[in-house]
Amino acid sequence: MIIMEKDATQEQIKYVVDEVKKHGLRADISRGEFRTIIGLVGDESRISFAHLAALPGVKEARMVETPYKLISREYSELFEGKDESHVIEVGDVKIGGDEPVFIAGPCAIESKAQLFRIAEEVKRAGAHVLRGGIFKPRSSVHSFQGLGSLGSEEATEALTWLHDAGQRFGMPVITEVRGESQVDLIAEYVDILQIGARNMYHQDMLSRIARKGKPVLFKRHFGASVEELLSFSEYIAAEGNKDIILCERGIVPVGKGKSYTRYTLDLAAVPVVQKETYLPIIVDPSHAAGRRDLIYSMSCAAIAIGASGLVIEVHYNPAEALVDAQQMITPSELGRVIETCKQINRVVAAGKKKVIAA
Amino acid sequence: MIIMEKDATQEQIKYVVDEVKKHGLRADISRGEFRTIIGLVGDESRISFAHLAALPGVKEARMVETPYKLISREYSELFEGKDESHVIEVGDVKIGGDEPVFIAGPCAIESKAQLFRIAEEVKRAGAHVLRGGIFKPRSSVHSFQGLGSLGSEEATEALTWLHDAGQRFGMPVITEVRGESQVDLIAEYVDILQIGARNMYHQDMLSRIARKGKPVLFKRHFGASVEELLSFSEYIAAEGNKDIILCERGIVPVGKGKSYTRYTLDLAAVPVVQKETYLPIIVDPSHAAGRRDLIYSMSCAAIAIGASGLVIEVHYNPAEALVDAQQMITPSELGRVIETCKQINRVVAAGKKKVIAA
Amino acid sequence: MIIMEKDATQEQIKYVVDEVKKHGLRADISRGEFRTIIGLVGDESRISFAHLAALPGVKEARMVETPYKLISREYSELFEGKDESHVIEVGDVKIGGDEPVFIAGPCAIESKAQLFRIAEEVKRAGAHVLRGGIFKPRSSVHSFQGLGSLGSEEATEALTWLHDAGQRFGMPVITEVRGESQVDLIAEYVDILQIGARNMYHQDMLSRIARKGKPVLFKRHFGASVEELLSFSEYIAAEGNKDIILCERGIVPVGKGKSYTRYTLDLAAVPVVQKETYLPIIVDPSHAAGRRDLIYSMSCAAIAIGASGLVIEVHYNPAEALVDAQQMITPSELGRVIETCKQINRVVAAGKKKVIAA
Amino acid sequence: MIIMEKDATQEQIKYVVDEVKKHGLRADISRGEFRTIIGLVGDESRISFAHLAALPGVKEARMVETPYKLISREYSELFEGKDESHVIEVGDVKIGGDEPVFIAGPCAIESKAQLFRIAEEVKRAGAHVLRGGIFKPRSSVHSFQGLGSLGSEEATEALTWLHDAGQRFGMPVITEVRGESQVDLIAEYVDILQIGARNMYHQDMLSRIARKGKPVLFKRHFGASVEELLSFSEYIAAEGNKDIILCERGIVPVGKGKSYTRYTLDLAAVPVVQKETYLPIIVDPSHAAGRRDLIYSMSCAAIAIGASGLVIEVHYNPAEALVDAQQMITPSELGRVIETCKQINRVVAAGKKKVIAA
Repeated sequence: MIIMEKDATQEQIKYVVDEVKKHGLRADISRGEFRTIIGLVGDESRISFAHLAALPGVKEARMVETPYKLISREYSELFEGKDESHVIEVGDVKIGGDEPVFIAGPCAIESKAQLFRIAEEVKRAGAHVLRGGIFKPRSSVHSFQGLGSLGSEEATEALTWLHDAGQRFGMPVITEVRGESQVDLIAEYVDILQIGARNMYHQDMLSRIARKGKPVLFKRHFGASVEELLSFSEYIAAEGNKDIILCERGIVPVGKGKSYTRYTLDLAAVPVVQKETYLPIIVDPSHAAGRRDLIYSMSCAAIAIGASGLVIEVHYNPAEALVDAQQMITPSELGRVIETCKQINRVVAAGKKKVIAA
Repeated sequence: MIIMEKDATQEQIKYVVDEVKKHGLRADISRGEFRTIIGLVGDESRISFAHLAALPGVKEARMVETPYKLISREYSELFEGKDESHVIEVGDVKIGGDEPVFIAGPCAIESKAQLFRIAEEVKRAGAHVLRGGIFKPRSSVHSFQGLGSLGSEEATEALTWLHDAGQRFGMPVITEVRGESQVDLIAEYVDILQIGARNMYHQDMLSRIARKGKPVLFKRHFGASVEELLSFSEYIAAEGNKDIILCERGIVPVGKGKSYTRYTLDLAAVPVVQKETYLPIIVDPSHAAGRRDLIYSMSCAAIAIGASGLVIEVHYNPAEALVDAQQMITPSELGRVIETCKQINRVVAAGKKKVIAA
Repeated sequence: MIIMEKDATQEQIKYVVDEVKKHGLRADISRGEFRTIIGLVGDESRISFAHLAALPGVKEARMVETPYKLISREYSELFEGKDESHVIEVGDVKIGGDEPVFIAGPCAIESKAQLFRIAEEVKRAGAHVLRGGIFKPRSSVHSFQGLGSLGSEEATEALTWLHDAGQRFGMPVITEVRGESQVDLIAEYVDILQIGARNMYHQDMLSRIARKGKPVLFKRHFGASVEELLSFSEYIAAEGNKDIILCERGIVPVGKGKSYTRYTLDLAAVPVVQKETYLPIIVDPSHAAGRRDLIYSMSCAAIAIGASGLVIEVHYNPAEALVDAQQMITPSELGRVIETCKQINRVVAAGKKKVIAA
Repeated sequence: MIIMEKDATQEQIKYVVDEVKKHGLRADISRGEFRTIIGLVGDESRISFAHLAALPGVKEARMVETPYKLISREYSELFEGKDESHVIEVGDVKIGGDEPVFIAGPCAIESKAQLFRIAEEVKRAGAHVLRGGIFKPRSSVHSFQGLGSLGSEEATEALTWLHDAGQRFGMPVITEVRGESQVDLIAEYVDILQIGARNMYHQDMLSRIARKGKPVLFKRHFGASVEELLSFSEYIAAEGNKDIILCERGIVPVGKGKSYTRYTLDLAAVPVVQKETYLPIIVDPSHAAGRRDLIYSMSCAAIAIGASGLVIEVHYNPAEALVDAQQMITPSELGRVIETCKQINRVVAAGKKKVIAA
């Protein structure tokens, strides 16, 4: 990759391109608003980067290979000359800004009464966005798959409840799209479309959801590297939709013997992603833990490491939930989580500024 | 496992044991200071736990299997009637108490001057314990293996420096024991003996180090489950040494493509370990990250999730370090980490109390 | 789970059910063609399995939990009294029988000429089924996604070529369905529908494909345990389609440092799956290796461990392939693989019989 | 790395070195028996490999980085001009030659009678080397640790039995060294020293064992990449001992849910290792499977993929073994394994030759 100076002339660019071709490589020219970048295609050992870097108009020449560009902080800076993190606005809620955002609600919507009661209580506890599962991905075909799976009437009814609960309590709403056939229906009712971990690699669905033009919550697959998470979010960005909220929710445990949590929460992925891309990233402690007694600690850690928010499953009576009963916390516990996390966020941000100043 | 009531009589115990034998199982009787526990050996499906639980003097009867007992919070509670976390005192430093402890120093000790300068600067930054590598485990036989590997004279000299630096700046000192043959020598000079991740499974060395009677810093292997970490710390406890400081330092990355960190820091292991055992657990962000720019965030998260302290590699000029140059931070950065972490610790502890009160 | 004797009477069943209820558990009765099984729902520690096993008409009573039943060898045996492995017939080809089946063809179909030439050559080399990718799942949105992704006309054309090549050279054909929207179209043209590793967890698509009533090649996800592979194939079986060919194609590499293959081929999954289910399982060495020089060895091992066949990517000139060029072998190499594998299959089968006889 | 022609002159070498230095890099000169290689240290982007390759006397110039050299096939070829695989001779047994070698015996030696009976029976079944554990690494301190752990008298006695059984039945013997303190003692009695998976990273022990000058069986750690296995075997080779038999025995399972085997046997590591190094590699199916019913299939696959041999745990009555009872096979089953494996080896070797000829 050869990065040209901002004020490189057409002659200089042409000269570099010719030089590249002379060595038997192809030159791919990308002209950004800000500067031009020339990609080399072919055997790069045939050319000296030191030599290229010395040509007039060249800012930098180096070996590079990245499977993501559109969402890349580096490319954004190079092409468009901007380095700001992307703040996604959904109604009054800002995701990726200075304050962490809390998305809460039941794992699965079971009835209108259940949803409205939880919505009211999580709002009071300080939540900003209401979540609720309608189409539930499940490991066993013999388990409850959510109201949405019962038929189109039940699906529409549950979506209406979700929409109405959001309106009533003043929160944007989000639900997971489990399959392509649900995209159009769900997009009519919700503010943010969620792509679950299991569908991270499902490129056709990614593209289709992206085209709805609504913000997307995009969860990392439990077998995926950070690089893959970013490469696949590029499928969404490629449709012109950059309102992507990334989400870390744990990767498969490694090793013999018990790990005591359902997945391994890879919290360091948060600052890593923030350095690689301008997109916000949030954390889902509920699915990573799979047990309620770790949610408080894991939430504190997620915010301390810099996450832009949390998705937490909440139920007024976890024991009676149809799905994932063991990992839900109560609205009152949520209140404590939110309160403590906001304080941690301020402490960390203040400390960060000092580091920069030192 | 059958847990007897505290005031169960010998007759009641005998009756239960006979009942167990009648069903063709063996009964292992463990008499603690506090109560008696009867373990069943054999095919447990031949007996009804409900039936056993109903016998006089029986508090609880249930299926259970654990590879660790001596360090287990549950067993400690059952046997000895106590549930407090273990606070390890090394000089004036308390590990496992209310305040997080910071262990800092160079990856490898390179010279007396280097060590003393770093010791002075980390002390000023707020560190409590001085670390410094003398015998370095390395992936390549062709890399620098630490001063200790050069010969017995160099090893002794480096150990003397470490000891003296600790004395001079008022910090207990710690270094890693890489092989059994170094145990006796190192134990003469340091306050805490470190067992590195690669040696977690090395039971002969564990026993030998344990017998020195000094506190042990015991790091989780990067391929080990939490259950294995606990099972192997049992080798130390079995020698009568319960001054074990556990340490999470990252597990092997999973997945295709880049993870951008050297290991995956499994921070949820911290609260999990705290629920399973009364031993303190600290975190090493330096080796997990393998890069300096994540240390601040990862440290904040580790303390937020409840770690009793941190081990951080520090150098006044990271670029010139002989080992792991890319992951060391400066003493001034360490100061900011410590200051912020202390605040986070207070915020989280306060929030935790509120949760309990609610 | 309580397994009743084949000739258990209604009274005996009722008695057992009442006994279960008396202890506060629910009894789920499954009546197979062959016998009745009673599942217990609730706290199983409240009842003695030894007691249940002693009731009249009860063959066996034990604790059990399985997320798959329909495809389970054990359930099949219990319910339907049969234990044979399932042989799937596609035209003249038998998958899961005594002879291994070889599925071969290009990674991606690039043109009619390319496909027909490869089809002719793999047929001559001994292949039984022709494969060819039309909708290619890719990690990067910027890579070639197969002819099918160019538009509906190109997709239909490529499907027609595949269908015609199969007819011309006398082989059933198979291609991957990447998204739900392609199911109907593809099912018109091919004999076997392939669900790629990335879509293993995509339950909506699984159900939809299953309903086409055609044999399905179902690949294990690279982050999935064997248990999950089996649980998700249950989604296909639940639609009444048991013509499922399972496929092992490698799981994510573990550990720091190079593994030298793209994925870790978990060959022991083959005999494990064969013990758990009556479905056939084949192996895809091409994607697991990601390099051509290991295909011969890995193929030999796959057949030696008992796989019912192989899927291998073939090109007459691997270097010019648009996708996965580095992992394709030539038709002539395929011939040697097939010839050797057939001999290995005979040797292993003969040895297995001796073991049983001993 | 710059590889000089075999007949490169001193002037040519000097010219290249000067050219390297001119660009600000350091040149490390390695003179083999066969040719000279110049390693570049520093920022390699400052120089053009194409330019270097064009200098007189230069055979090849390319970017390269390898943590192992002494055991590397490539280096061996470059330096010493030889490419043959290393055949290790222990008594009459040749490991790494045309015929697979079978190492068999009990997991743990329990008594003289037990060992002698098993030795006699495995010999009759066709085994070449006798194994037997004396110092057993165990996950739980509360489990049986082998006779060697009971005291020095018991250790010596068990070693004498092993030695005598080998003499009596004409087989070289092997046992695992669990800790450094056992090296000298064990080396007196056995022909091959085994380094278990858990000790793979234990460099001090590796060096110490290597210096005994006896062949070493070196097992891959269950969390290690192939690259790490090779890097650490370099510790043995660095002591001048190249009689290293590598061993694949399974890596940690990945994923949620059951894998049904104790570890994931990474069989593709066999041909990979054979391409990277001239050392022989064998396979241990017993520990990978952890269950007896897979040993036959996994053994067949290991030989089919090219392993130079197998280590298999055998007991005349597996059920009564003190350690790993569930994974041992009988001598009669071993006979069938050996017989079938020898046939597979011939079939695969013949097929391989045909591939080369085609």
